[in-house]
Formats: sequence, structure tokens, C-alpha cells
Amino acid sequence: MAGLRARVLYDFTSENPGEISVKENEIVTLYSEQDIEGWLEGLNSTGQRGLFPASYVEILKNQTASSYNNSSSVDAHQSSQRVNNISAGSYTSTFASGFPAPPPLQQQQQQQSYPASQGSDDDWDDDWDDSSTVADEPGVTRGGLHDFENNGPNTYRVSTSSMARGGNAQQAKSSATVGRNLNRFSTFVKSGGEAFVLGEASGFVKDGDKICVVMGQYGPEWQENPYPFLCTIDDPTKQTKFKGMKSYISYKLTPTHTQNPVNRRYKHFDWLYTRLVEKFPVISVPHIPEKQATGRFEEDFISKRRKGLIWWMNHMTSHPVLARCDVFQHFLTCSSTDEKSWKQGKRKAEKDEMVGANFFLTISPPNSSLDFQEVESKIDGFKGFTKKMDDSVIQVNATLNEFARKQITGFKKEYQKVGQAFKYLSQAFELDQQTYSASLNHAIAYTGEAYEAIGDYFVEQPKQDVDPVMDLLALYQGHLANYPDIIHVQKGALTKVKESQKHVEEGKMERQQAEGIAERCNIISFATLAEIQHFHQIRVRDFKAQMQHYLQQQISFFQKVTGKLEEALRQYDNA
Amino acid sequence: MAGLRARVLYDFTSENPGEISVKENEIVTLYSEQDIEGWLEGLNSTGQRGLFPASYVEILKNQTASSYNNSSSVDAHQSSQRVNNISAGSYTSTFASGFPAPPPLQQQQQQQSYPASQGSDDDWDDDWDDSSTVADEPGVTRGGLHDFENNGPNTYRVSTSSMARGGNAQQAKSSATVGRNLNRFSTFVKSGGEAFVLGEASGFVKDGDKICVVMGQYGPEWQENPYPFLCTIDDPTKQTKFKGMKSYISYKLTPTHTQNPVNRRYKHFDWLYTRLVEKFPVISVPHIPEKQATGRFEEDFISKRRKGLIWWMNHMTSHPVLARCDVFQHFLTCSSTDEKSWKQGKRKAEKDEMVGANFFLTISPPNSSLDFQEVESKIDGFKGFTKKMDDSVIQVNATLNEFARKQITGFKKEYQKVGQAFKYLSQAFELDQQTYSASLNHAIAYTGEAYEAIGDYFVEQPKQDVDPVMDLLALYQGHLANYPDIIHVQKGALTKVKESQKHVEEGKMERQQAEGIAERCNIISFATLAEIQHFHQIRVRDFKAQMQHYLQQQISFFQKVTGKLEEALRQYDNA
Repeated sequence: MAGLRARVLYDFTSENPGEISVKENEIVTLYSEQDIEGWLEGLNSTGQRGLFPASYVEILKNQTASSYNNSSSVDAHQSSQRVNNISAGSYTSTFASGFPAPPPLQQQQQQQSYPASQGSDDDWDDDWDDSSTVADEPGVTRGGLHDFENNGPNTYRVSTSSMARGGNAQQAKSSATVGRNLNRFSTFVKSGGEAFVLGEASGFVKDGDKICVVMGQYGPEWQENPYPFLCTIDDPTKQTKFKGMKSYISYKLTPTHTQNPVNRRYKHFDWLYTRLVEKFPVISVPHIPEKQATGRFEEDFISKRRKGLIWWMNHMTSHPVLARCDVFQHFLTCSSTDEKSWKQGKRKAEKDEMVGANFFLTISPPNSSLDFQEVESKIDGFKGFTKKMDDSVIQVNATLNEFARKQITGFKKEYQKVGQAFKYLSQAFELDQQTYSASLNHAIAYTGEAYEAIGDYFVEQPKQDVDPVMDLLALYQGHLANYPDIIHVQKGALTKVKESQKHVEEGKMERQQAEGIAERCNIISFATLAEIQHFHQIRVRDFKAQMQHYLQQQISFFQKVTGKLEEALRQYDNA
Repeated sequence: MAGLRARVLYDFTSENPGEISVKENEIVTLYSEQDIEGWLEGLNSTGQRGLFPASYVEILKNQTASSYNNSSSVDAHQSSQRVNNISAGSYTSTFASGFPAPPPLQQQQQQQSYPASQGSDDDWDDDWDDSSTVADEPGVTRGGLHDFENNGPNTYRVSTSSMARGGNAQQAKSSATVGRNLNRFSTFVKSGGEAFVLGEASGFVKDGDKICVVMGQYGPEWQENPYPFLCTIDDPTKQTKFKGMKSYISYKLTPTHTQNPVNRRYKHFDWLYTRLVEKFPVISVPHIPEKQATGRFEEDFISKRRKGLIWWMNHMTSHPVLARCDVFQHFLTCSSTDEKSWKQGKRKAEKDEMVGANFFLTISPPNSSLDFQEVESKIDGFKGFTKKMDDSVIQVNATLNEFARKQITGFKKEYQKVGQAFKYLSQAFELDQQTYSASLNHAIAYTGEAYEAIGDYFVEQPKQDVDPVMDLLALYQGHLANYPDIIHVQKGALTKVKESQKHVEEGKMERQQAEGIAERCNIISFATLAEIQHFHQIRVRDFKAQMQHYLQQQISFFQKVTGKLEEALRQYDNA
């Protein structure tokens, strides 16, 4: 592919080592047509070599300019490698170390830890995790808590423009001097954040869909779920269909608020995850456990995935907004045997209008205005925090991983070698032909066995303490990977407010319109701060619990070792 | 030195890979005049290349045959390297794996773990360990328990020949058909064992010098010391003399039976050790700690040497024969300030007649005869035992050495890395701007410090448990290195008995003479079996105590670790 060229579609300014800046309409030379995690390598017109987002350019082939974007569709295998790279310190440009820069959206999606399937019925079976169709059978409908397609009497249509005091949506659209950000397909644009701020979002918001942000002790927070519940995940069972041609693992989910167990497969979790990510622009949807191509029916993998799903479920049910949303409730409560209801709910969720920009319509903020400078400062602080937390999570992860590996290999070996040496000594002593040393020989042999056993304890231990910490860290790495987008949406909204204020000063925009933008930014800010608050609360809860668990397990371990040694010591009492 | 040649003085039969056999008067070609730990490399007359004992040949130089033996005097530096090689599996020919073969005596001495100085006043200061002269000052004489040069009324002259029932010493000597082993300068010959068995030893044995072997529960054993005592070694102090030109370390020895402390230097221990090795052919004299050329005034070395001397002292005072012997008592009791007495006792010891062959004259065996076949079988069993014990001691030593090294390096590093990762996590969490997480952050930081502290515990631990085991093993390696010689003397005596019986059958020897040989072999056998019994008893005592100590220390260590972790866990109570 030597001499392969591409035309730059949008300005891109390099922000990190390894990247190069490119300008709209510039022709760049590519080293390869193949993108690396959403980035292409090439030479720009000033002769600089480096990386730029693949979707910012259009590859020029055979005199025919075909959109490169079309060929950069998500490859689940490739994108999942990004996750592994997080802790390996790859060259990838980062927004904050450990986060991908915000390149165009398709790359953003590639950089998700858990690539999502498209969710349509057509490619429902393209899920490479398990390739059989859903085994749900027709039965009695038992719908979710809310029927979100029922535009009945208790739903009403609302548009963002109507929320600007005395504003007019049409005017806002037409006089869009604070206009769309055409320069990039930014998260702000794609998430609907921009459309919402500019007053372009509209939809019917049912009472049940209303999401309240309230002022709590530590600032804005999501209103607590008045009907809190938990959900257990048990009995991973191998199921087969098509006369055994296709197999999958089914998990039994039992939500405490219905007590009715439902069976769900990984692909259902995956589908749900995709819906949630689409729907909630400033909520950090916990990532589901990674897909895996091989060994899906091995006990270790199933047990590990189940643990991952339990963590995920725990974060879902802990979240005041996610726990209550219709699609999740449908997932938790629709009978596994009622295929018709399942498909109905599925179609409703996929057609949900209150996603992206419209999500913000559902938010009821407190009756107060936030100080945007303070919001920006808080967001910046949080950005710094997530960066540092991400770094330290990577470090703890790598360290504990290595610690576990050392325990399983080196530590075990050392203790077993000591054990073998003692056993060998006792064997030598057994040649001594002296009756009075028999019990000493036995005691030394026992000591040898005790050390060998301690070696085995080291092998078993990481499952008890390191692994749960690693599970926790994986979940939080997912959250931390979500935050750049959330922050980006928030930052975009604040920028629009600044722009609108400037335009008002310059007489290019009516004050009312700017007030509408500010009011909608206020809503986004309340939502973002509530989400950050929620994050801190579950973080403190989770890390406290997990550190305690880790230490308790470590203490048990050393007590077990001590007990074994005391047993060995007792052997010498009569020696 | 190409073409250097030597004449073989005695037949040597190769017994191990790497050795070649040479015959008396054969001319061999040498690769070098320089011997390697008592061995020369060369070609024999049949063209085989290999090793043979240096002292079995006479190097032919400039047509003048000079005795090579004269040039093969002990080189302390070189011979001490042998000790290190024991565990490194050197090529050296071995009697039993880990033991040197019995080449001529000067090589035997070179292979001692602790090279001995000659002990004469002239080279008293040649000790390379510390090169200053003795600082003892004249004072009041306080002699040993026995004055071994006082041939007073309670001493009597005894000769081995008189011990043969109705035999005649002169006759035994003159009709030496069971004669000297001229074939080799074997340990049996050099130790005096042969001379004694052949009835050639004679000397005055004082009552106080008598050493009794009695029948104990488990066979022959040394009569217990009726005046058991211990001796502490304290206050290693740096002393200087000649206006600070020379320095040495002085230890305070306090024997419990006199309660009078005396100051002794390493060279005094060394001198004593040499006397004991000369005097006792079938007693395993514990080796004194190794010499060291550098760092002799460093705290670690002094502490290590003191511990080694304490172990040595413990084995000396535990031994019924060694504990009571005059030279040891002189060493323990002669005032450090009475130089005259010290020199007197020193000279007496160096002139002691009851050494080597004459030592056997001092032994009073039980009034019974041992079954020599049974003795031989026991000796063979013990030989196998020592071989296996030596192997396992080497293995335990190497394993614990490596275990200690891993704890000091790898284990420490892993725990400290975990500690640092937790500390880093707590630092990240401190950026969260949330008051409610402050105590969690503190607890995580505390946990990090706890893991760092545990890393340090691992560094400190080997001093508490591994090091004492290593000291024990070093002492036993010394004993195990002594036994080949002891076994060799015993075997030599048994061989003489067999030869004499054969000669009697062939009519070449009188029955009486053979009976004398058997009776003297009986004495040696009692002594050897008593020594073996003593070895087993102290071995069981020492290894039991040391294994208990090791386990207790390991238990304390793990309890300390547990305690630290519990402390860390408590930090989360209010987090």
C-alpha cells in the first residue's frame, strides 16, 4: 500500500507525543490502510510523521474517494485488545494518561473495554461470544415496571427549547450562531449533549421516566431509589439447542423485588449494556465482563465471568438511575419463557426515544442554579482525580498481579524447596540406626511436609484475596474509561455557555436564548455532579469493603501458615 | 615447566573418575609442579592423564631428585578453599561423596576445614588472621586441672604390647609379619592407629589421663564427665598493642566450673584446635570458625565469629573426653594476665606424649570383646549415614541460604511493591475532594505502610531463624569432614586383625601376637563406637533444639506479620 493517500476531512490538532496535526483538505500519505485502534500512521504535508484519527481522513483509492469511515466499523477482537493495553502502557494517545483521546465516535466505541454488539435482531446471533439464537420460548407477558412506549395520559411532550424561559425552539435552531461543532464528531455532539444545550432535543417524558437530582450533604446527587433491590446471579448452567449443535451458558438472576428468577445469557447482558450506553450520556454504565473467544465452557472461566457479572449487577442495582430504568427492569423481570414479551420489551428499548439528547429532558434538577466556574473547577478536579486513580489502579493491578504470580511460582517454590530439604534431612537421619532419634526424624519429616503445604497455601491464596481486588479494579477501570466522555459532554456544555455569553455581549444573540443554554447546561451539570457524587460514594464503599476483605484474607492466610508451623513444632515435644 | 617429570614413590590406585593409577618407581610427566589441593596432574607411563596425590611422587629437577614432599607443606589459604568446595561439588576425589579421599597425610591436613597453624612459638605470629603477638602479661599461675608433665607417683608407663595377654612387646615388634603399611602414608599410619595396633605405642599414662569407655543403653559410650561445665563467650573487644600498630579482638570466656573469666583471641582457639586434632585420632574435634582475611573488625563478622565460637565451645564442653583434656582446661582456666603460666602450659601441651598412637594407651575399654564383624557393619552403616547426612546438610544449607536470600531480596521487594501500590492508591484517593473518604484514604495509606513494614520483616527474619541453622550446619559439616579419617583408622585396625588371623592360619604369626592385635583393635573399636554414639546424641540434641528454635522463630515472624495486618485492618473500622 505504498503511496496510499488520504484527504483530511476535519482539522486535528496533535495533543500528545506521536500524534501529528492535520488540516481539513490536506492530503496525507499513509503507511498502511489498516488502522491501529482507530489511528492511522502517515506523513502530513509538512513532512511530519505520526498518528491521527482514522475517521478524520478519507482514503483516496483508484481515483475514487471512498469514505474510510465505512471500513472502520468496530472489530470486536481488535478493540478488546485496547483493554489489555491499558495496563501495558501502550503508545496510544491519551486524554488523561490511561484514557483514549476523544477521536471521532467510532474510535471512541472501539476503545470501550467491552465491545458492544449492535443489538438489532439481525445480528443478534453475530455475537462471537456464543453464536446460537435466544432460547426464549413464547409464554405469558410479564412486562417491566414502566411501559415506555405507552404514550398514555401520564406522558407529556417536552422540548428543550420550551425549557428556556420564554424561548423559542425554532428561533434557537435558525439563529444558531452558537452553532454545531462541525469541526469534530465529538462525544459532546454524538452524545446529544450539544443538541440538548442548543435546545434541539424534544420528546415525551413520562412521569415514570423523570430522574431527580437533589441537593445532598455533599452537593448534587441522584435521588435515592425508593424501591432499592438487589439481584443474585447463580447457577451458571450449560444449555444446548438445535439438538446440541449450539451451546451457551445461562445464569439464574433473582431480583429481590420480584423474587422471580429469570434466566439470562451473556448476550442479553451485552444487549442491555449497549442500550444503557446509548441511553445515558452522563452516567457511567458499568462495563460487563470481557468477551472471550475460547474456553467459554471451562469452569474457571464461567466462575470468573459469574463473579464479574455479580460485580456488574451490584453496581447496576446500586445506581439510583440505572437500577430503575425500564430496559434494565425488563431484563430483570421479563419471564425467560415468555418470548413474545421479551421481544416486545426488546423492541421498545431499541426504539426508546428518551436516549442521548432526550435523556437530559428527563432530568429534574433542584430549583437552583450552579456556579459554572465552580462546576468547571470541580470537573477539572475530578478529571485530575480520575487520571491519578486510573494510574494507581493500573499500578495496584499490575503489582497484585505480579504478587499473585510470585506467590504461585516463586514463593511456592522456595517453601517447597525448604520442605524438600527438611524431608531429605529426615531421610538421612533415618539411616542412623538409633532408636532414640526416630521421633526427631518423624518431626523433621513432618516439618518438611508442613513447608510443602505452606507452598501450596501460597498457590491457593491469590484466589482468596488478590482475585477479588482484581475484579474490583477491572470494574473501576471500566468506570474510569467512561469518564472522559462524561467530562467531555460537561465541558462542551460549559463551553457553549461561555460562547453564548460572548455572543450576547457582542449582540449576536438574545439574552433569553443564552439563558436557555445556561439553564440546560445547569441540568447537565447537576446530572454530571450527581453522577460524580455517586461514583465517589460507591468507590468509598467498594474499596473499603474490598480492602477489609483483602486484609482479612491475608490475615487468615498467615494464621493458617502459623497454625501449620505450630503443628510442626508440636511434633518435637516428644522427640 | 614442560617436560617436568616425577618418580612415583608409592603405588596409588585410582578410585574415582579423574584419578590415574601409578606404580612405585614409575616415571610420570607433570603438567605443573603446582599441586591443586594436594593433587598433581600428569601422564603415567601407560599414557593415561589424570590426578594422583602430590606426595606419592618425587619431582625430578635438574637431574637431582629432591623430595617433593618438602615443598608441599600446608598453605593455609589454599587449603581453606577446600571447605568452600564441599558444597560446590568440586572435582576432588571423594572417599564418600563430599569427603576427600585419604591421600597422604599432608594432603589430609590441607583438606581440613580450618587450617591449623603450626603452634610453635616461632610462627605464633604468622597467623594471618591477626598478626600481632599475644598480649598476655605475667601474673599468678592458675594451671589446668591436670598437670600432664608431672610424671609423679600416680603416673605409670604402659606399652601397647603389654596389653596383649601374655605377649611381649619386643617380640611383637621384631616379628612384624603383620607389618607397617609401607604402601601409603595413610591416616591409619599417621594417626598412630597402625603403630598402636601393632603394639608399638608406649608411654606413661597418668590416672588423670585415663579415658573410660563404658557400655551404655545404646552400646559403647564415653564415660560421662563427672564435672560437667559450660563456658560463656562474651564481650568481643577490640584491643590494640604496640601503640595501636596491631589490633585484635579479645573474647571473654567464663567457664562455669571456675567462674573466672579469661580473655582469649582467635589465634588461641586456633592453637588449641591444632593440639586437639594432633592428640585425638578417633575423636571428632569440632572445627573452629573459619579464618577471614578482611573485615575482621566489622561488627557483623565479630558477632558471627562469636556465635561460631559459642557453638564450638558448646560442642567442646559437651564432649566427655575433650571437655576434660588438659590442654582445653589450660586454655579455659589459665589467667590471661599470667604469661609465664600460659607459656608453660602451652609448651607442655606441645610436648604432650599422649598424642596419636599413645592416645589409645589412655583408653580403658569395658571388660568385653566386640564382635568385629558387627563393628565393621556398624562402621559401614555409619559411613553411609555420614555420606547421606553430608549430602542433606549441603542441601539444607544451600536451600536455606537461597531462602534467606529470596526473603531479603525478592520477598521484600514484592511486599514493598504492594505497599507502594496501596500508598499510591491512597494518594490518588486524596485528590477526591470528598471529606467522607478521608478515613478510608488514611486506612489505605496505613495498609501500604504495613506492607512495607512486612517487607522489612522479611529482611530481618533470616538472622533470627536461618542463620542459627546455618551455624549449626557449618559445625556439623566440620564433624562430617572429620569422620572419614576416624573411619579410616577403625577400618585399618580391622584390616590388621584380619591379616593377623590369616597369618596365624598360615603359621606365620603366633596366636598370642594376633590376640594382642585383636585386643588393641578392640580398644580402637570401643573408642570409635563411643565417639559415633556421642555424635548421634549431640546431633539429636542439637537438631531437635535448632528445629524447634527455627519453627518458633518462623511462628513469631508470621504472628508479627499477622499482627501488622490486623493493625491495618483496624484502621478501616471507622473508615
